[in-house]
Amino acid sequence: MTTRIEQYRIFELNLVGDAGGNPYADVALHAEFTSVESGEKIRVGGFYRGRGHYSVRFMPSITGVWQYHTDSNDAELNGVTGTFTVDAASSDNHGRVLPAADVVRGAARDAYGSQLPFRFSYEDGTPYEPYGTTCYAWTSQPRDVQVRTLSTLANSPFNKIRMCVFPKFYDFNVLDPELFAYQGSIQDGFDHRRFNESFFENLDHRIEQLADLGVEADIILLHPYDKPEWGFSMMSRDDDEFYLGYMARRYGACKNVWWSLANEYDLMPGKSLEDWRRYARVIMANDAFGHLRSIHNCVKVYDYNEPWCTHCSLQRVDTTRTTECITDWRRQFGKPVVCDEAGYEGNIYWGWGNLPGTELMRRFWEGAVRGGYVTHGETFIDKGPQVWWAHGGELHGECPSRIDFMRKIFGTVPLDATPLDPDCTSLQTWPVRTSLDEGAQMIPAKEKAMQYWDVPVLRSAENYQLVYFGWYRPLYREFPLPAGHHYAVDVIDTWNMTVNRLPGTYEDTVKVDLGRQYLAVRIRMV
Amino acid sequence: MTTRIEQYRIFELNLVGDAGGNPYADVALHAEFTSVESGEKIRVGGFYRGRGHYSVRFMPSITGVWQYHTDSNDAELNGVTGTFTVDAASSDNHGRVLPAADVVRGAARDAYGSQLPFRFSYEDGTPYEPYGTTCYAWTSQPRDVQVRTLSTLANSPFNKIRMCVFPKFYDFNVLDPELFAYQGSIQDGFDHRRFNESFFENLDHRIEQLADLGVEADIILLHPYDKPEWGFSMMSRDDDEFYLGYMARRYGACKNVWWSLANEYDLMPGKSLEDWRRYARVIMANDAFGHLRSIHNCVKVYDYNEPWCTHCSLQRVDTTRTTECITDWRRQFGKPVVCDEAGYEGNIYWGWGNLPGTELMRRFWEGAVRGGYVTHGETFIDKGPQVWWAHGGELHGECPSRIDFMRKIFGTVPLDATPLDPDCTSLQTWPVRTSLDEGAQMIPAKEKAMQYWDVPVLRSAENYQLVYFGWYRPLYREFPLPAGHHYAVDVIDTWNMTVNRLPGTYEDTVKVDLGRQYLAVRIRMV
Repeated sequence: MTTRIEQYRIFELNLVGDAGGNPYADVALHAEFTSVESGEKIRVGGFYRGRGHYSVRFMPSITGVWQYHTDSNDAELNGVTGTFTVDAASSDNHGRVLPAADVVRGAARDAYGSQLPFRFSYEDGTPYEPYGTTCYAWTSQPRDVQVRTLSTLANSPFNKIRMCVFPKFYDFNVLDPELFAYQGSIQDGFDHRRFNESFFENLDHRIEQLADLGVEADIILLHPYDKPEWGFSMMSRDDDEFYLGYMARRYGACKNVWWSLANEYDLMPGKSLEDWRRYARVIMANDAFGHLRSIHNCVKVYDYNEPWCTHCSLQRVDTTRTTECITDWRRQFGKPVVCDEAGYEGNIYWGWGNLPGTELMRRFWEGAVRGGYVTHGETFIDKGPQVWWAHGGELHGECPSRIDFMRKIFGTVPLDATPLDPDCTSLQTWPVRTSLDEGAQMIPAKEKAMQYWDVPVLRSAENYQLVYFGWYRPLYREFPLPAGHHYAVDVIDTWNMTVNRLPGTYEDTVKVDLGRQYLAVRIRMV
Repeated sequence: MTTRIEQYRIFELNLVGDAGGNPYADVALHAEFTSVESGEKIRVGGFYRGRGHYSVRFMPSITGVWQYHTDSNDAELNGVTGTFTVDAASSDNHGRVLPAADVVRGAARDAYGSQLPFRFSYEDGTPYEPYGTTCYAWTSQPRDVQVRTLSTLANSPFNKIRMCVFPKFYDFNVLDPELFAYQGSIQDGFDHRRFNESFFENLDHRIEQLADLGVEADIILLHPYDKPEWGFSMMSRDDDEFYLGYMARRYGACKNVWWSLANEYDLMPGKSLEDWRRYARVIMANDAFGHLRSIHNCVKVYDYNEPWCTHCSLQRVDTTRTTECITDWRRQFGKPVVCDEAGYEGNIYWGWGNLPGTELMRRFWEGAVRGGYVTHGETFIDKGPQVWWAHGGELHGECPSRIDFMRKIFGTVPLDATPLDPDCTSLQTWPVRTSLDEGAQMIPAKEKAMQYWDVPVLRSAENYQLVYFGWYRPLYREFPLPAGHHYAVDVIDTWNMTVNRLPGTYEDTVKVDLGRQYLAVRIRMV
């Protein structure tokens, strides 16, 4: 009987070999997979799981029959061959998320226009927009909390989660986890060349469960919120590389994995920029599937122009001007921009985590209309023992339902919708000396320059326009419309989650009554 | 009988001379005033008022007997002499506002510490903090509106007003004023060498009324919001200088005058940076009393390092990051920083004028705690025919009462209170690896670096600290206190205008419950 698996799912080759010495370090194992129809070959590294067990994991992007054979310095693992058949993906399985520019081919590229470099796509061509959340240490919590986290995610709008491998030490995060990634103990020390299979089996399971929920696992490989008894932020360069290679071989076949080299790399003074570049090369050498790669800053934005970075994973670096900077970051880096920390909804004592929902949602919309993506987090310290941003558990805030509303709105934005670039230097041409119609109190909207200097705008040619007002609450606003067309106009209340379609259609100019905060105006050609 | 006037008030010498030709241009008139006791001499230019009438206005800073004599190319005006006596100022008359560094002498300077360059003072040494508002064209409105504006100001917290000489053309500002500054008419054109005495008598009166209310008149000499039929923004350089000299001679003796060369100088492409410097020299040459001088930008901040600028009169240049920039501007210019446009409360359609009161007040507090000053404006377009920012009339917003509250709070801040400079690079030292007390959930506040990276702080040595939380709403915050002292702690609700004194006094650390937006915490040594 032929083994059959679904496209983009994992084919796992499990072998038994030598358990002597330190197989984590001593045994090399690879398998080469060949698509019989296309001839495509992919060489994948295996990994040791303890007690003589070895695995090679493979994720097929091509349907049909695949053959494989192994090579290893362990004779028992060497020369193993086999075959399996890959069936087409089911309708909710789209494979990896990758830069749209690497995925979208042929005529489909036209739909993205100039926005192709700033977008993601599943590998089957389905557009992907990240609506991420943050649970740094959720897999280090007690099992019941992990289960509740998954349940919460299942009923949330989130399709990405930022999560660490190692436990977190910080306020509200002071307990030791049940499982560590390494063999050993706090008392006796950890062996950085021998992994703890129980830890990794749990991680395997959680990443797979995320995949089943359609949630990308944005795996944070290293981070500074460590304590001396753990020491995982202060391992040697060789130990770091040993760990990174293992992670890449073990999880490269998981379709929903993204690699984040670090949370707040700039708070890890023991690691240089050259270390991070080296670590990226280790990931690339061991991940046969080329997953997304980035790194996250605290204060100093990383240079995402470095070729190994597939996208930006920024923390805002100014307490006031947050996702507004997405305009600049797109220009600076020319890649998809994810603002992975723009502040969190909650009431923890630091300014990164005590925003009201209104302000976090404002940052979400501001960033999205500027052509980027914003990540959620929640930091209420008076809602129970778990704080979502670190532990997972339950969500308590006002944002998730509004992110769900927002996600539906943006699901209908044309792929080529382009943020207008607010270039205030053209204010020089402000036509303040325009004459008025007799008796008019107002300079006509059509004659006003810089119609949109104050608000972000997303526009697709003459077809579609989305304007977001944020804090601002004009009593009304006039919008000049391209000549020769008719337009439908909606007032979107991003906070109260309503869409109010204005009666009829409009040409030439439309005056839209507004008058409160957090509104957007959508104008579509009909 | 000796003429007696009060110190800092105007002694006006009125003379009659030749009315032939164009006395505005042809007649030179000066008077030299000498303080008999001190020997101090001040030479002051006079100005023509029409129908053969000339005036010289003098503001004495020194009490006692003064003598004067005139010189002129008109024989009737030449060689006039006289004497008058100056009595000490009454208790609510403090003279001009000047840079504190130019006024405060001797031991009194110590009270300002490092903040002396950033502060204003009345010339008698009374501290002055500007709480300005904006009524660009109030003196160009019908007389009843002007009267109502003064009445509103009398019941407001404002002690400075930004006001243009010339009328304003813009939305809601399209009507011709009753009086123009020049002789002539829209139909026949204006004579830029002959002023309209009726216009200037009204302006005299209004500036004097402002002085009686304790309101500084921040006079905007030129501005771009003009229409072709008026043309006052497009006069020749010679005409501009002729006008500026006249203004400086006519109003230099008014204790409450500040000179703003322009509103939005960068929207006047016909005038170069060298023109503005030249115009500043004209003002300085003709204003015998050395009033405050600045200029206001639209998009491009002026270089306030130029020596003629006594202070900064900025418009915020980013729609999001507004009075936060005061930290940078203080560093850049080393002078008092007034953010004369940080957005207005109202609902006009542009983002500069449709803020809710909460956001404008946030910008006020943010700016003040950062060591600057913020100016008010109001732009409701649905509250009647007058819009305060241009016409004056009545105030409708939620800010004025809260500015009054704020002004009282800041009236008790020590003069040397210094904004902490949030230097995020020191985040590198975040002690995330600090060990905890056994069983504690929290890293102790004393061991946390960057206690204030997220909020602005004003601090006077170990005596006084004011922290403003703005948008942020931590459930609580711990404040480490200097050793060896006891402190009283207040929670100030800047929006609801309450001061809640915590019971007792504190040492070492104080944990303050917060939990909503727009709070400040004041900590004072007792």
